[in-house]
Amino acid sequence: MTTNTPWDAPIPAPDTGAADAAWQRQMQLTKPPGSLGRLETATVRLAAQQRTSLPALERVWITVFAGDHGVCDEGVSAFPQAVTAQMVRNFAAGGAAVSVLARHLGATLEVVNAGTVTPLPPLAGVRDEPVMPGTANAVREPAMRAAQRDQALALGDGAAARASDAGAQLFIGGDMGIGNTTSAAAVACALLGASPEQLVGRGTGVDDDGLVRKRGAVAAALARHGDDRAPLSVLASLGGLEIAALAGAIRGAASRGLPVLVDGFIVSVAALVAVRHTPDVAAWLHFSHRSAEAGHDAVLRALDAEPLLDLGMRLGEGSGAAVAVPLLQAACRLHGEMATFESAGVSDGG
Amino acid sequence: MTTNTPWDAPIPAPDTGAADAAWQRQMQLTKPPGSLGRLETATVRLAAQQRTSLPALERVWITVFAGDHGVCDEGVSAFPQAVTAQMVRNFAAGGAAVSVLARHLGATLEVVNAGTVTPLPPLAGVRDEPVMPGTANAVREPAMRAAQRDQALALGDGAAARASDAGAQLFIGGDMGIGNTTSAAAVACALLGASPEQLVGRGTGVDDDGLVRKRGAVAAALARHGDDRAPLSVLASLGGLEIAALAGAIRGAASRGLPVLVDGFIVSVAALVAVRHTPDVAAWLHFSHRSAEAGHDAVLRALDAEPLLDLGMRLGEGSGAAVAVPLLQAACRLHGEMATFESAGVSDGG
Repeated sequence: MTTNTPWDAPIPAPDTGAADAAWQRQMQLTKPPGSLGRLETATVRLAAQQRTSLPALERVWITVFAGDHGVCDEGVSAFPQAVTAQMVRNFAAGGAAVSVLARHLGATLEVVNAGTVTPLPPLAGVRDEPVMPGTANAVREPAMRAAQRDQALALGDGAAARASDAGAQLFIGGDMGIGNTTSAAAVACALLGASPEQLVGRGTGVDDDGLVRKRGAVAAALARHGDDRAPLSVLASLGGLEIAALAGAIRGAASRGLPVLVDGFIVSVAALVAVRHTPDVAAWLHFSHRSAEAGHDAVLRALDAEPLLDLGMRLGEGSGAAVAVPLLQAACRLHGEMATFESAGVSDGG
Repeated sequence: MTTNTPWDAPIPAPDTGAADAAWQRQMQLTKPPGSLGRLETATVRLAAQQRTSLPALERVWITVFAGDHGVCDEGVSAFPQAVTAQMVRNFAAGGAAVSVLARHLGATLEVVNAGTVTPLPPLAGVRDEPVMPGTANAVREPAMRAAQRDQALALGDGAAARASDAGAQLFIGGDMGIGNTTSAAAVACALLGASPEQLVGRGTGVDDDGLVRKRGAVAAALARHGDDRAPLSVLASLGGLEIAALAGAIRGAASRGLPVLVDGFIVSVAALVAVRHTPDVAAWLHFSHRSAEAGHDAVLRALDAEPLLDLGMRLGEGSGAAVAVPLLQAACRLHGEMATFESAGVSDGG
């Protein structure tokens, strides 16, 4: 790593005292202990992260990172690369899934172009900061050079800094990049020592021939890459610009004490890179959903993650995380506003 | 059945034309087809039920039915029966989980006292319409007489009528009744031909001895009841006033073309009664969550139901359904507001 990236910033520990206080409160609320299930544990976790016994989720920040993938030359996607930039325009125009969800949640949404093949005009809500016009084809050469990876990591860190400075209480990263399930699967295979058969899925919906091409491309990229499992080496060799930016954003949020709600397959692979490099990042993560993408399960297991939702979603963009936000908001409202047995004059069965 | 109950009102069929139109629209939105998973199928189902290609969930109605259970004489609950009425006061004061969630959702919340042991004073938001001061002990005699059951069914139908008249777009029924997991398990055992070991769980949290007493009470009630599996006979013999009211509310909502979001174990058993009696009711149901209560899985299977959430909740009150509402609201917003490939100028990969 060069020294001009924030990848070495220390990760604070969540506040166990706040967690204890929140847990005590949960036990006094007018319900059988434990009867709110994972809403209780998520609240206690948020309490520790937000350093208060009464966590809140009114200010949610979403950054979607876009980037193109040279591995698309191998015929791995059902969509042409031009769609990445077209979708950035759609984010800006408010017509994409995450645009609708951000509006619905009252969340801040920004889009960072980390490197599309197609240049973008100035667009409201879009930071045009391309590292390069898409990665190189990882089957033939490293997807990025170290300096390009570091620049992408710093893009992500910058988004986390903006979210933190704006007082966000939760950070969501999203991805847009035609071909990125191929790159993410390659990164996950390298980090987990898994085979393409285990982790390569259909992404946006390739047919059987496309799936064979995807697996072949990942196998070839892994063979070229070799045995190096160092997270940042794997990221540069096999990853994507938006995947690197997401890893930087996740680590950057953790380093600023800002909890992260992890989206699906792509963002989970970015989280895996961050956690494999810096295990303390894990204490700042919540997991939103189990994607229908084939490799997500294995990545979630490697992260010891049990996501809140399992709805068969596989869209990316941060959409699964955005859909899960109201669960955490409801958990916080319940925690903060329910009566206690004593205040309500209800017998606690003790 | 007496003729003064609405239990024989016809059930309309959802509008398959609206479902087809909604499905067509889903296929044009800027996302890979199917990538919103169950949010897509839930939207299409709502479209059919609401008879529009653009369903909406802005007006949600929640009725919580309260009732006490004579079977508490057998020592089946961790809480005293007085808690049922205490919790009704807590609902009215805004301190219960469902009170907080209704406020959070902007949903209408009403409470119907279908029969608590403890009389209630006039309370804002509470309809005090007790059929009787709790059911009889089903181990020794039928929980209700037929006329009492019919009165409870009519209470539920009345709530559905109020919701429909108010223009609600979704009906949620909730339960409050110390001892009601015992009654619900007995009803489910009788309807499904299952054993107490399969369907009796810990409810609000009985210890091992309590669990043995619960199973013994359900076994004794089933032995007294005999082989009659007619849903309304089972309901009167083994059920609860709030369970009967919920069955009436679910059928009443279906008969008025109002979709229902089913909560956890208690409400699912009420739905099972309604569907076993009138199979067409099933077309009007959505299932919100898989409860941690032991018997819920079997009841969901019997209803061919795959709930949206699995968060280990087991509180009742309609709380699990209320927590799931934002998923359906997000689904409707996405469906209504996302751009199409054509309008956004995005290549559809076709």
